[in-house]
Amino acid sequence: MQRWIANRPVCFYRLSDGSVNAIEDRCPHRRYPLSLGRLEDDVITCNYHGYQIDGSGTCVGVAEQPDVPKASVHRFPVVERYGIVWIWPGDPEQANPDDIPDVSWLTDENWTHVHGVVPLKARQVLLVENLLDLTHETFLHPSSIGNAAVASTPIDVTSEGNKVSFIRHMIGIEAPPFYRSSMGVTTDIDRWQDGDFYAPGIFILNIRIAPTGTEEPEGFHMKVIYGMTPATDTETHDFFALGRDYKIDDAELSAFQLKQQLAVMKEDVDALEIQEVMVATDPGMLESSIRSDVAGIRGRRLLERMAKAEAAAAAPARPRAAVAGA
Amino acid sequence: MQRWIANRPVCFYRLSDGSVNAIEDRCPHRRYPLSLGRLEDDVITCNYHGYQIDGSGTCVGVAEQPDVPKASVHRFPVVERYGIVWIWPGDPEQANPDDIPDVSWLTDENWTHVHGVVPLKARQVLLVENLLDLTHETFLHPSSIGNAAVASTPIDVTSEGNKVSFIRHMIGIEAPPFYRSSMGVTTDIDRWQDGDFYAPGIFILNIRIAPTGTEEPEGFHMKVIYGMTPATDTETHDFFALGRDYKIDDAELSAFQLKQQLAVMKEDVDALEIQEVMVATDPGMLESSIRSDVAGIRGRRLLERMAKAEAAAAAPARPRAAVAGA
Amino acid sequence: MQRWIANRPVCFYRLSDGSVNAIEDRCPHRRYPLSLGRLEDDVITCNYHGYQIDGSGTCVGVAEQPDVPKASVHRFPVVERYGIVWIWPGDPEQANPDDIPDVSWLTDENWTHVHGVVPLKARQVLLVENLLDLTHETFLHPSSIGNAAVASTPIDVTSEGNKVSFIRHMIGIEAPPFYRSSMGVTTDIDRWQDGDFYAPGIFILNIRIAPTGTEEPEGFHMKVIYGMTPATDTETHDFFALGRDYKIDDAELSAFQLKQQLAVMKEDVDALEIQEVMVATDPGMLESSIRSDVAGIRGRRLLERMAKAEAAAAAPARPRAAVAGA
Repeated sequence: MQRWIANRPVCFYRLSDGSVNAIEDRCPHRRYPLSLGRLEDDVITCNYHGYQIDGSGTCVGVAEQPDVPKASVHRFPVVERYGIVWIWPGDPEQANPDDIPDVSWLTDENWTHVHGVVPLKARQVLLVENLLDLTHETFLHPSSIGNAAVASTPIDVTSEGNKVSFIRHMIGIEAPPFYRSSMGVTTDIDRWQDGDFYAPGIFILNIRIAPTGTEEPEGFHMKVIYGMTPATDTETHDFFALGRDYKIDDAELSAFQLKQQLAVMKEDVDALEIQEVMVATDPGMLESSIRSDVAGIRGRRLLERMAKAEAAAAAPARPRAAVAGA
Repeated sequence: MQRWIANRPVCFYRLSDGSVNAIEDRCPHRRYPLSLGRLEDDVITCNYHGYQIDGSGTCVGVAEQPDVPKASVHRFPVVERYGIVWIWPGDPEQANPDDIPDVSWLTDENWTHVHGVVPLKARQVLLVENLLDLTHETFLHPSSIGNAAVASTPIDVTSEGNKVSFIRHMIGIEAPPFYRSSMGVTTDIDRWQDGDFYAPGIFILNIRIAPTGTEEPEGFHMKVIYGMTPATDTETHDFFALGRDYKIDDAELSAFQLKQQLAVMKEDVDALEIQEVMVATDPGMLESSIRSDVAGIRGRRLLERMAKAEAAAAAPARPRAAVAGA
Repeated sequence: MQRWIANRPVCFYRLSDGSVNAIEDRCPHRRYPLSLGRLEDDVITCNYHGYQIDGSGTCVGVAEQPDVPKASVHRFPVVERYGIVWIWPGDPEQANPDDIPDVSWLTDENWTHVHGVVPLKARQVLLVENLLDLTHETFLHPSSIGNAAVASTPIDVTSEGNKVSFIRHMIGIEAPPFYRSSMGVTTDIDRWQDGDFYAPGIFILNIRIAPTGTEEPEGFHMKVIYGMTPATDTETHDFFALGRDYKIDDAELSAFQLKQQLAVMKEDVDALEIQEVMVATDPGMLESSIRSDVAGIRGRRLLERMAKAEAAAAAPARPRAAVAGA
């Protein structure tokens, strides 16, 4: 399977031991995609002239001659965890599985989730800022997850290393349409929206909905992970999984949540693709910002700093990317 | 309503007093189009994060915080006259409503007109030169408004300030197909084609058709205004209105004239879009010119001079543009 | 007829003496394509403003004025031979009809052929290398003309001037599917694949298939000519003719061979268009090469050397191109 990640084609496949492997999807011979080749005994034979590439990305033979060409392609560090394939397209030395955030709710038997991926024709940072400033729900998603309370409730923002977090607790508010229908809550509610951005590409939203005054750990809990994976400079894979800890055997509810989530993401994708045009056609415009932008701006700066550091280390800026597992 | 003008998105709308307003169609916050927002009491609320922009382009509030962000977008000088919205995308100081040419025939009760707009994927100057050299009618429009007389009759050209004018009086010629059918003239005719180009974007053609020897003011009179509005460097809005002073209550004739005008413009648009490719793929070619090109070349030079003057004044070249009113 | 060749639009037409003429397809007046004009008495009248261009590319009149504008367009050296139009888009001084390779089998009564042209969205050099390294047949065309013997049989390569030749004689091999069905050979065969590349754009493949041990001149002979004509930097016209010296009156076999040839070329075109993306997105990648690449690499270097020489002579690099005749 080929997927473009951070301007590079990556060939993903499983080795015979079941593990996921990822190598540059350009044959070292004439750049033909290895993902179009034939996989046998963990060796891909390129379908153009037959270079044979093993799991490490090294050429191990050709049909044209007995001696083996000295050639190889980049092998990307990958880890499969929580049903997600995590890839590090930057300097392999800096790939650290410990950086992977804990999303064990994806495999927790007390939770269930729906997931998918949506293509986005916009630069990744616009999606990062979209998620780090959820006040847009009030204006862009009024028929589903937004209402006036989101925009009017300020957030507390903290940051640490490559992480930016915000907390928004809306107390005693009306439930927005989506929650009213999926949870059956008709009274006023407390709604928590706590977000964690792990630069460069992961965002996790912790949601709690409960009738006002209910004490934790009571209430409905949901979590959403977004794997905001740059495909190219102006295209992004928008991976997501939405989990819940209630009615986990209710398949109808799952189908409803997936449909709702995709509907909300479509509103975002439509808006971001329009914004991309507006940004691309006036890249130098100075933007006005307000207090609710604090998390988004910190996220954007983190990305800029990481890209700069990578450029300084003479390697192109290539953020970590999450690829939804099969 | 959004329209791109001279490489900028412009948001057009009516204020509660009925006047037309035009502001840059990028929210000062995150560049989302204001034209996608909600208009209430002359204030547009951006549909992404809720910036509130008044008619002057100034932010007057946000839902996220009580204090008002200091932010604004460009407001374009606009005038509504003769049923046309006139906008000046250049330096507002230089916008002068007195520069608007007299097209009072558009609202004169002794005249009637048809109008519309045609999109053109070609740079505006090609359209300017197309209209300033009508000898092309002989070759491109032989089945409607062109015949041999147009190419073979020379023009008198005069210029003054930002205006280039030409006069072509064809005396005792055969009527081309379009006029034969719409006016019922079967004898030889006199045909006048007098054009005025007001740089950077307006062209007015004064047409008189009459049986040969008829004295003014007898005869059929028609006037056409073209609002040649650059959308981007290689796209143009081709606004037009075609008026006449005869059979002004004849709706069938109006429908016929609109259909004919659009058919002729389609021939021009097809040719200009092909020419655009030819020009773009060999921008440096030295063109050969003849006497009938005098008006077109003066028009082109006027545009170059105005663009240069604007660039010198450190403002991007943005010609005046006409937008057909509702 | 307009065809783009080496980044220039060329207008092809026949003069009244039956000869083929080729001139730059941009009117010297306003660059409108002459191919859209009217041809009468060997003079093209441009359909925009009526410039009249004769067979030498010189303007010989206009309808707008009695005096003839001094203007002309480039006339390309062309020769029609073997039913093919040969054009030289480079320096006319260097056009030498003696450089045209002998493909008299195209008009030999003991031979028959099928022909056509396939559009390719890839740079021409990728097609050159495709044909100069036929080991790809093993991997890309296993269901028609490829089998293991192609990749495993080494070639002898020679070069001389602007020509690169290779010889591959496969002795006592299984016949690949295409030959089994079209020739009825079921025994082991000898298969010869001898190729000649005439830089910059012609490739001729000489094929001999015969039951093993058959002596020349017995056996089935086929020849294929490819006119690899660059349209633009990333687009190529892939002209071809496939001839044979057996069953030359068998129309059904001709239809089968044309269908097979187009099927094989589609596999190549699909692969080359994918390769074009891979090359364009990583133009600096250092490729690994093996012995079977010798002919392809020599071909590529020939092209680079010719382009360099042309650039040094202050003329843009424009390879010779073949256009299949009517």
